[in-house]
Amino acid sequence: MKSTEKLQLLRKAMIAENIQACIIPSTDPHIGEYIPAHWETRQWISGFTGSAGTVVVTLEKAGLWTDSRYFIQAEEQLKNSGIDLFKMGLEGTPGLEEWIKNQLSEGDTVGLEGNVYSAADALSLIRFFNNHNIQVKPDFSPYSSIWSERPPIPENKGFILAENFSGESTSGKIKRVLEKLQQQGCNSTILVSLDMIAWLFNLRGNDVDYNPVVVSYAFVSEKETVLFIQSRKLTSEIVEYLTGEGVILADYEKIYSYVNKLSADNILLVTPNKMNYQLFTAISAECKVIEAGIHPIDSLKAIKNSTEIEGFQKAMQKDGVALVRFLMWLEKQLNENAKVTELDISEKLKEFRSEQEYFFSESFHTIAGYGPHGAIVHYAATPETNATILPEGLLLIDSGAQYLDGTTDITRTIAVGSVTDEMKKDFTNILKGNIQLTNAKFPKGTVGMQLDILARQFIWEEGQNFLHGTGHGIGSFLNVHEGPQSIRMNYNPVAIEPGMVTSNEPGIYKSGKYGIRIENLILTIPYKSTEFGEYYAFEVLTLCPIDTKLIEWDLMTPEEIQWLDSYHQKVYDKLSPFLSEHEKEWLKESVKHQ
Amino acid sequence: MKSTEKLQLLRKAMIAENIQACIIPSTDPHIGEYIPAHWETRQWISGFTGSAGTVVVTLEKAGLWTDSRYFIQAEEQLKNSGIDLFKMGLEGTPGLEEWIKNQLSEGDTVGLEGNVYSAADALSLIRFFNNHNIQVKPDFSPYSSIWSERPPIPENKGFILAENFSGESTSGKIKRVLEKLQQQGCNSTILVSLDMIAWLFNLRGNDVDYNPVVVSYAFVSEKETVLFIQSRKLTSEIVEYLTGEGVILADYEKIYSYVNKLSADNILLVTPNKMNYQLFTAISAECKVIEAGIHPIDSLKAIKNSTEIEGFQKAMQKDGVALVRFLMWLEKQLNENAKVTELDISEKLKEFRSEQEYFFSESFHTIAGYGPHGAIVHYAATPETNATILPEGLLLIDSGAQYLDGTTDITRTIAVGSVTDEMKKDFTNILKGNIQLTNAKFPKGTVGMQLDILARQFIWEEGQNFLHGTGHGIGSFLNVHEGPQSIRMNYNPVAIEPGMVTSNEPGIYKSGKYGIRIENLILTIPYKSTEFGEYYAFEVLTLCPIDTKLIEWDLMTPEEIQWLDSYHQKVYDKLSPFLSEHEKEWLKESVKHQ
Repeated sequence: MKSTEKLQLLRKAMIAENIQACIIPSTDPHIGEYIPAHWETRQWISGFTGSAGTVVVTLEKAGLWTDSRYFIQAEEQLKNSGIDLFKMGLEGTPGLEEWIKNQLSEGDTVGLEGNVYSAADALSLIRFFNNHNIQVKPDFSPYSSIWSERPPIPENKGFILAENFSGESTSGKIKRVLEKLQQQGCNSTILVSLDMIAWLFNLRGNDVDYNPVVVSYAFVSEKETVLFIQSRKLTSEIVEYLTGEGVILADYEKIYSYVNKLSADNILLVTPNKMNYQLFTAISAECKVIEAGIHPIDSLKAIKNSTEIEGFQKAMQKDGVALVRFLMWLEKQLNENAKVTELDISEKLKEFRSEQEYFFSESFHTIAGYGPHGAIVHYAATPETNATILPEGLLLIDSGAQYLDGTTDITRTIAVGSVTDEMKKDFTNILKGNIQLTNAKFPKGTVGMQLDILARQFIWEEGQNFLHGTGHGIGSFLNVHEGPQSIRMNYNPVAIEPGMVTSNEPGIYKSGKYGIRIENLILTIPYKSTEFGEYYAFEVLTLCPIDTKLIEWDLMTPEEIQWLDSYHQKVYDKLSPFLSEHEKEWLKESVKHQ
Repeated sequence: MKSTEKLQLLRKAMIAENIQACIIPSTDPHIGEYIPAHWETRQWISGFTGSAGTVVVTLEKAGLWTDSRYFIQAEEQLKNSGIDLFKMGLEGTPGLEEWIKNQLSEGDTVGLEGNVYSAADALSLIRFFNNHNIQVKPDFSPYSSIWSERPPIPENKGFILAENFSGESTSGKIKRVLEKLQQQGCNSTILVSLDMIAWLFNLRGNDVDYNPVVVSYAFVSEKETVLFIQSRKLTSEIVEYLTGEGVILADYEKIYSYVNKLSADNILLVTPNKMNYQLFTAISAECKVIEAGIHPIDSLKAIKNSTEIEGFQKAMQKDGVALVRFLMWLEKQLNENAKVTELDISEKLKEFRSEQEYFFSESFHTIAGYGPHGAIVHYAATPETNATILPEGLLLIDSGAQYLDGTTDITRTIAVGSVTDEMKKDFTNILKGNIQLTNAKFPKGTVGMQLDILARQFIWEEGQNFLHGTGHGIGSFLNVHEGPQSIRMNYNPVAIEPGMVTSNEPGIYKSGKYGIRIENLILTIPYKSTEFGEYYAFEVLTLCPIDTKLIEWDLMTPEEIQWLDSYHQKVYDKLSPFLSEHEKEWLKESVKHQ
């Protein structure tokens, strides 16, 4: 069915319910970054496959709002769809709410599917429209009837992540969650985010691309802990483990009626930005609700325990070995003038990684961007764009894997042939920023916004910048992007604490020319305890050589060069036990100053 | 009269109005940093002279809450006052509100003097107490009757700051304020802060120590601009200038009835954190009130115009000349083994500055802290503490002046004799931090919290820190501390923009040993305009040598040494035209690498 036909069906449903505009966001009931196909309504109706974007449909018009990462892709995919592209962030592009307001008249109604909107976003939309005398119908959900081939909610079996990987039992985690809740004056909470649930119940699965999570909800209180999950997803191992840990199992859909009947003695912590609006409004009016910006489980999950940290270190060795083999393979192909494309690179990376112990999946869609494609921050090669690597310029590869013992996320930029002075200068400035952030020492309480400049200072000196964050949290065999910490130009009040694993990924993007990014994962560790308090530092977890052919040595300070040499020595020491003589030779050679 | 007797009188007044607790803050109706003696009620009742602190009086107890800067001083000054000291920020110290709540019973009443509380603070207090079923009487103001020798509201004459100093007429400024108000959807505003009023009306005076302001209120709207000021403060020059600029003059106290009668067509911008509660509640219920965190005048005032920037540059030359003469004098005294005390230093600094053209006053109480006194961040020498400078260790001098053409604020730390390696290392790390912040380049939109680490990174590396801000805004012949920008470890959403003058003052304080701080004022200037946007840089305004005897040269990078040499060359070039041959010789000698 074409988009235009789908729009026709939707408009029919709108008319039937007296709705003049309808909003289709790209979220799901679990407010996730990656979502199961069942909830990819926006993609279904528009054909646009980007991760971020919202469709609005009125009786006459339709539009997709998306950000600069997806302008080109959206333009392509929306052709003949009957949906106009609204480029967010450009001067003159109306805001989505503003635009709807101007299309509608007072007394009109906007339809939302309340279960795929975060409560925070839905409430803000409802407030906006009500202020303009426009009604909102938050349970407008015609998709099951108009979307004929809608995939079901994922039915995959989950599995228990053994404690030799998770490092802590579910009952131990529940205890700590309850303590945290008490500190915030609460005695219960509802869990909606799949990674929070996966962490708490040591539960993993296949329900979402790249994120090893299981579609489910949960409730935790001093009285009982309930996991709401489709019974077909359970195995005897799961049932045994969880019931042994004191967890009650209930059907997935029961969460709504359960929260609706919560008794008055519940003081419930909820995070409106991480809970869908339908569930939020289903909560019994009896119980007291305390809203928080950050859920205590996100705070606990971010601090990796010693088992998880060891797991990360092992995963990094495996990832490093795979990457060395990949880099050798790539070099060989290029030396032999064999054809290598961006898609070949993705495939080969996956192949080398999948040979490693405990490999589970990739941790996100590989970005292999050659030349100008490297300047597209969220580039994903398709058969149409798939570039062949030529013996000149830069290749940016951002990739990662899920191993049972840890999640990886690494970017390297490689000279595949001759490079210009501009490329070398840019690469060196990015490397210097990466090193300076790595070497940061900072007091307890420091937040990412304070550290961010360390990574950007050298390109700012050149009047250059990159517009993505410098660092995001990473889960332990969980989501490759997790909160609550970040290192960004924007304010985030979460302090960077020991045990957190965060990315360090400054970059620079020259449209139509090339992109450069160097990404390592860094673990926060204690540094010093003095009369002035506690101080922290970072330890690099990622183990993979940095391309020395791209370094302008004159721009590096002696300390920076020393850092690089000792990092490369560490890479060698950690990887060599797993490498052949030939591979070791290559690795030694590759890190020489060139 | 003793504090105990004053408390007795106050308690009598409390009983008469059925009040069980009364709060006496250290603010005035203009929510200023320095306040006229008339409103120093907290100081009158407690004897405590520190700038920050709040007294609470119940029928049985009394307490003063103050922060660590004032623990020692408060302990001393509260002896036998009947007032207990509550040390804020220490584990176990109850919060003021918490403490009052625990002293009182439900149904009791707390008395506040609403005109010396910001609306934001009063509303938050009222909310807190009402939540605990305690009433608040926000117009409890018995002080005029119980404070027998209360000084009057200042009656000094003001004066007009000529446009060759201010660079813009009042009518021009009003026009820009109205534009800003319109951008925020408003058409009028009430001005309470004395520096906002001084700026807008090009009006200066003597009503407050160090701040050349005039006690007054103002109202600005599309229809009329009114200055509320005691008529005895006016001169014919003021009346002529302001009426010529279209300003209406009204009596100081009339502001209350005026705002009470504002008509419904006013859309009033108010800043509840900068307006006293009594005035806030006097605003006519007819007009629409829009609350803002930062007043548009504070944003406009922070961006210095070219006349003000030139004025700053001239003021810095004069200040630099005065400081060179002072430093020479000090060196001579010490060489001759003459007795020099901390108070002598304050006096001499003032003397040298007062010889300079357009000198008006000091811009704050000089901090001359020798040895361990340097570690007391807000140290002010008194006859009791007044230390004699010995030929060893460090002397920290933080001082500044008001000149008609600009305000200065400078800190230098000087070796007055032999120094330890620890002192040199600390000094060098502070200097490096100061230089790195000075050399920052950053994109439009960058806020102070992002830049702050540049000044702290070297001491963080040592597990050290300083707990004050790195930078504050400075007025143009106005308050030495002004907003809205800052460079701190805390988040402040205000971007650092071209034309802003900010301090750069990292420090380190070793209790019982010494303090080090190096402070220059830096002007934000345009740096580069590239495909990535607008980039800014800093220009140092302050002109005074930095003590090279304290530098550990091995810790300095070649770039940092080069910066220092070229800064010293600039100091010489800018000051030498005003120096004698002998002074020039001294200056040349003083900046040599030692």
